[in-house]
Amino acid sequence: SEKFVSTIMDAASEGKKLGVEDPRRIIHSMKVGLAITLVSLFYYFDPLYQGFGVSAMWAVITVVVVFEFSVGATLGRGVNREIATLLAGSLGVGAHRLASFAGERLEPMLIGLSVFFVASAVTFVRFYPKLKARYDYGFLVFILTFCLISVSGYRDDEVLDMAHKRLSTILIGGSAAVADYILICPVWAGEDLHNLVASNIENLGIFLEGFGHEYFQTRNDNPQDDKASLEKYKSVLNSKSTEESLANFAKWEPRYGRFRYRHPWDQYLKIGVLVRECAYRLDALNAHLNSEMKTPPQVKAKIQETCTKMSSESSLALKELALSIRTMSSSSQADPHIVNAKSAAKKLKSLLKMNPWEDTDYLDEIVPATAVSSLLIEIVSSTVKIADSVHE
Amino acid sequence: SEKFVSTIMDAASEGKKLGVEDPRRIIHSMKVGLAITLVSLFYYFDPLYQGFGVSAMWAVITVVVVFEFSVGATLGRGVNREIATLLAGSLGVGAHRLASFAGERLEPMLIGLSVFFVASAVTFVRFYPKLKARYDYGFLVFILTFCLISVSGYRDDEVLDMAHKRLSTILIGGSAAVADYILICPVWAGEDLHNLVASNIENLGIFLEGFGHEYFQTRNDNPQDDKASLEKYKSVLNSKSTEESLANFAKWEPRYGRFRYRHPWDQYLKIGVLVRECAYRLDALNAHLNSEMKTPPQVKAKIQETCTKMSSESSLALKELALSIRTMSSSSQADPHIVNAKSAAKKLKSLLKMNPWEDTDYLDEIVPATAVSSLLIEIVSSTVKIADSVHE
Repeated sequence: SEKFVSTIMDAASEGKKLGVEDPRRIIHSMKVGLAITLVSLFYYFDPLYQGFGVSAMWAVITVVVVFEFSVGATLGRGVNREIATLLAGSLGVGAHRLASFAGERLEPMLIGLSVFFVASAVTFVRFYPKLKARYDYGFLVFILTFCLISVSGYRDDEVLDMAHKRLSTILIGGSAAVADYILICPVWAGEDLHNLVASNIENLGIFLEGFGHEYFQTRNDNPQDDKASLEKYKSVLNSKSTEESLANFAKWEPRYGRFRYRHPWDQYLKIGVLVRECAYRLDALNAHLNSEMKTPPQVKAKIQETCTKMSSESSLALKELALSIRTMSSSSQADPHIVNAKSAAKKLKSLLKMNPWEDTDYLDEIVPATAVSSLLIEIVSSTVKIADSVHE
Repeated sequence: SEKFVSTIMDAASEGKKLGVEDPRRIIHSMKVGLAITLVSLFYYFDPLYQGFGVSAMWAVITVVVVFEFSVGATLGRGVNREIATLLAGSLGVGAHRLASFAGERLEPMLIGLSVFFVASAVTFVRFYPKLKARYDYGFLVFILTFCLISVSGYRDDEVLDMAHKRLSTILIGGSAAVADYILICPVWAGEDLHNLVASNIENLGIFLEGFGHEYFQTRNDNPQDDKASLEKYKSVLNSKSTEESLANFAKWEPRYGRFRYRHPWDQYLKIGVLVRECAYRLDALNAHLNSEMKTPPQVKAKIQETCTKMSSESSLALKELALSIRTMSSSSQADPHIVNAKSAAKKLKSLLKMNPWEDTDYLDEIVPATAVSSLLIEIVSSTVKIADSVHE
């Protein structure tokens, strides 16, 4: 039982951490509870219940199933569910009517065949990557509704009535969910995407800020702190799937606040690709920090000034870019830093041309230093690309 | 209408491509159709219908919702659904019974409160990353069932009967789905993960095989073909989320074929991390292929032999490792290649120590070459790490 208590304590402390990390999670949970309780009113009040009967159950199901963390995801699921139900309902009623002309013997066979073909075809369509990204849930509901309507229609002749009730309860459930969502502390997927891209760029900047000091060991006051900030870029490496799903959700969201109706969500994905490319270079740079091939300080000293300059100016430029994304201003604050980084890169190139290590006998001592130099040069040009893409 | 026809044609050709790429997709679609048609039999045959009534609908819903592409995903959803329904059903009946002691006035309020608290709490628990990965669907079904049972219990006093029917129909639907899945051409998530990791390693090998020729331009017979094989490693960069979800599904799968019961799925994830690290280095190497800083051939010539050796030996080692994963044999075929790659790396290091470009005046001409050298050295050590991890 002691183990049980410690498990509970662990779970509670992790729950607290999750809540502190993003308080919207707690609000979201309570919103779901509230919406379901509201929809349950269908059952409590006699007049409402007599209008819809057992179909009111579908409103509860819809709210539970449609509720997602962000507005875009909820709207996407809601619209998908509504349209799929409408289409599949009509098709199911049609299939039922057609089959009933064929006589009592053939009817179940025809319906069975149509269920088989519709279910197989729609399941296959779910493999289309583009359709899957936006309408996957709709296809699922389509199969479900079509099967329920056409199959249960064989028993219950009030199919039309059932289809109608299902659709209207889903509409009510869906609207309740969406209204609840937009009115109480909405979480916008678009805003999350916006902030994610900005903080990814910022994380690259944080790495580059610390890199110069770490590589040339010019600051050792708080190594623990440095290590942590140097690891932050790692989350950028695998951000692709998060970004893509947020962009998909964002496309469902209506115009709001700072975001125009046709906000260029795809541009964020393009920036994301460039940011990840830059992050791969940082990862290579990071490998040099932890490398076993030690470069003597006197070798490093030759390139220290320009490299530190490139790293810190790129860092400042990236941070300014992140800030200009956050504030949605097309500021040119990053431009001077980019100019500085570029000129430092140029200086480094001409420095290398003259071979600053002519007095060094062993080339292998300078190999890591030149590798770091050329990575930094690439990072500067990568920063320029990100800047161009952000300004677009 | 011409546009409509061309859209249809495009969709058809894309569908054909999807089918040819992975014929299991077509089989999967037909399996879903078949399973749903089979479950629909509940409605067609009078004896079965009289046993279950409208609850038979739940069997259809279960089959539609539980069916996923791989056995692991289907089993995971099925088990989640079944256990969640059982737990939530008992809890719902309990809540209903307790509330009914409180009198007619208080009952709806108490039930409303319990719905609110359960829905909020379970929604919050869905944010725990570890629980979300494996039991997310179960939590959803838990909320759904609890609300339906406790709320509709207020109307219908035959709650226990309803809960029992729901559970048994879900059991039947779920079993039908699972039986269908395991008997007809099953798709195992574990096998997919296994093959994905192997082909990722293979793709790294393919890049390294082509890299030597491409960089030193020793082969130009079919540049188009080379370009395509040099791009293959890019799919590795973003493979993390696919690998993780496949590993999650694989954990639901029973012992089968070549995979032991406690197959170390987590080891695949560890290999995956190393493979991606190596892919980041390849990406940096690839940047050198497309770089504007051209290295004169006479500079490249000095390192051509060792670099080509390192690249091709690493490539062979990676390909052997991929093969040994595929065949699940702990063969040591890769070892001699690793030894060769290591000794080539050592040779390159000592070559660099003596500075092979002493006659070159401009260091900037040799910087890219040294960068390529040091990247290749890192790739060799990365290959060694992958080999160690595969042998484990």
